[in-house]
Amino acid sequence: MTSSLEQRKRRPHRFDATLQGHKLTLAYRGTDFSGWQRQPNKRTVQECIENALEKIWGAKIILQGSGRTDTGVHALGQVASFNAPRLHADSILQRALNANLPRDVRVVKCRLVSPAFHARFDSVEKTYRYLIWNHLVQDPFTWDTHWHVPRPLDLTAMRRASRFLQGKHDFASFTSNPGYERETTVRTMRRVSLVHDKETLTFHFTADGFLYRMVRNLVGGLVKVGLGKISVADFGKILHACSRSEAPATAPACGLYLVSVKYPPRPS
Amino acid sequence: MTSSLEQRKRRPHRFDATLQGHKLTLAYRGTDFSGWQRQPNKRTVQECIENALEKIWGAKIILQGSGRTDTGVHALGQVASFNAPRLHADSILQRALNANLPRDVRVVKCRLVSPAFHARFDSVEKTYRYLIWNHLVQDPFTWDTHWHVPRPLDLTAMRRASRFLQGKHDFASFTSNPGYERETTVRTMRRVSLVHDKETLTFHFTADGFLYRMVRNLVGGLVKVGLGKISVADFGKILHACSRSEAPATAPACGLYLVSVKYPPRPS
Repeated sequence: MTSSLEQRKRRPHRFDATLQGHKLTLAYRGTDFSGWQRQPNKRTVQECIENALEKIWGAKIILQGSGRTDTGVHALGQVASFNAPRLHADSILQRALNANLPRDVRVVKCRLVSPAFHARFDSVEKTYRYLIWNHLVQDPFTWDTHWHVPRPLDLTAMRRASRFLQGKHDFASFTSNPGYERETTVRTMRRVSLVHDKETLTFHFTADGFLYRMVRNLVGGLVKVGLGKISVADFGKILHACSRSEAPATAPACGLYLVSVKYPPRPS
Repeated sequence: MTSSLEQRKRRPHRFDATLQGHKLTLAYRGTDFSGWQRQPNKRTVQECIENALEKIWGAKIILQGSGRTDTGVHALGQVASFNAPRLHADSILQRALNANLPRDVRVVKCRLVSPAFHARFDSVEKTYRYLIWNHLVQDPFTWDTHWHVPRPLDLTAMRRASRFLQGKHDFASFTSNPGYERETTVRTMRRVSLVHDKETLTFHFTADGFLYRMVRNLVGGLVKVGLGKISVADFGKILHACSRSEAPATAPACGLYLVSVKYPPRPS
């Protein structure tokens, strides 16, 4: 039995071709959300947007996100899709949705698409960023948007370690819950970068897909390298061990952002 | 009777020369504070810091700020002073204070100074900045740190209008409560700048002192110029009218930051 990422992505989904497909690009500050996915008695992003859709259409509409984000994780370009009768042009719908959403979530783009479009199954690439506030004193403006690392970090070592991640690897060592993932833990990391601007360090990770908590575990490991707690070579060994029991600590949720989700070009 | 700014600043204050003077530089996110000044049943910056001082010294200590900031106004470099028996070196005191402060206020610098130092009376210059998020869609990360102006702004006109402000003027047209100010409304504006980086506009204002709500009223007026609601010449007329009844609307508190307070060099 093969269980490749491609097969998972090709999983068929049913849709009603008489409905209009809608693609939303969303930004949210995750601080006051219990993550993306709707749960009873919790404030979630999915619920906020589904409530706004219900106000506009007068009926319950199920929203499909490109993936879940955990409590406290932010998004600059989360993508979600739903099918519903065509009511408005995209610009009017964007304004109507934003008028019905709390200020910590915004629809930054709204497009009418084919009803076959599915935000999760059709995605081919995602980019995350992770922000670190690297200064002795915490900053009152970034406590919920950056991980505060007070001690100096060896950026050269961190960059060298991050080079191990480039390309196709089994990232089992960097998922928090390997049993939960029934499919392959192989992913292709297309780009990793680390930029340093005054007290702020910014990681970017682009891959064909990410495992549960993968970015936070990668950053946790890279910061251990930066603090000199593990060597660059040890970081490589952890990756190649393909075992979560080898892995370093998870970085906090507050520094993580889903930046963008890529889809194949639309057939024209 | 003369009542110049200089005379006000030279007002004598009593101090106990046997105590140690302390100078704190503070950063705070104003969102969840009812401003600087202690008030009954309100969460204020002054109260938070005085409570931390009381924990460390075991006695009530009165803190003098360089000036008040309103509800929702932020600071990157507010300065405050107090006199107390010498307990700790400045770096230890900074850490002890930060350990006893909520995460939206930080002591960014702590210096032992002469007990004659007074954060308000000794200040000779202040710099404020004002941030505007200028994009059709509000941003979930900046709703409490920037004023959201959705319509396009004519930056050239705004820069031309801001040139009227340079130098020594009676700024009575730009204070919200002229009756409250018993002293002169003449101030010297040393620098005004407007920088534009993607969706963010940043004003900087440096003067020998500021009237109540002066920066927010200046920004309110400059944005009216940017929107084409008043002309550059009209903005100049408002300034020269020296009358608050002439003045445009006040910009919201959330975009305003007290950046720094300058003092004369210490005698060596």
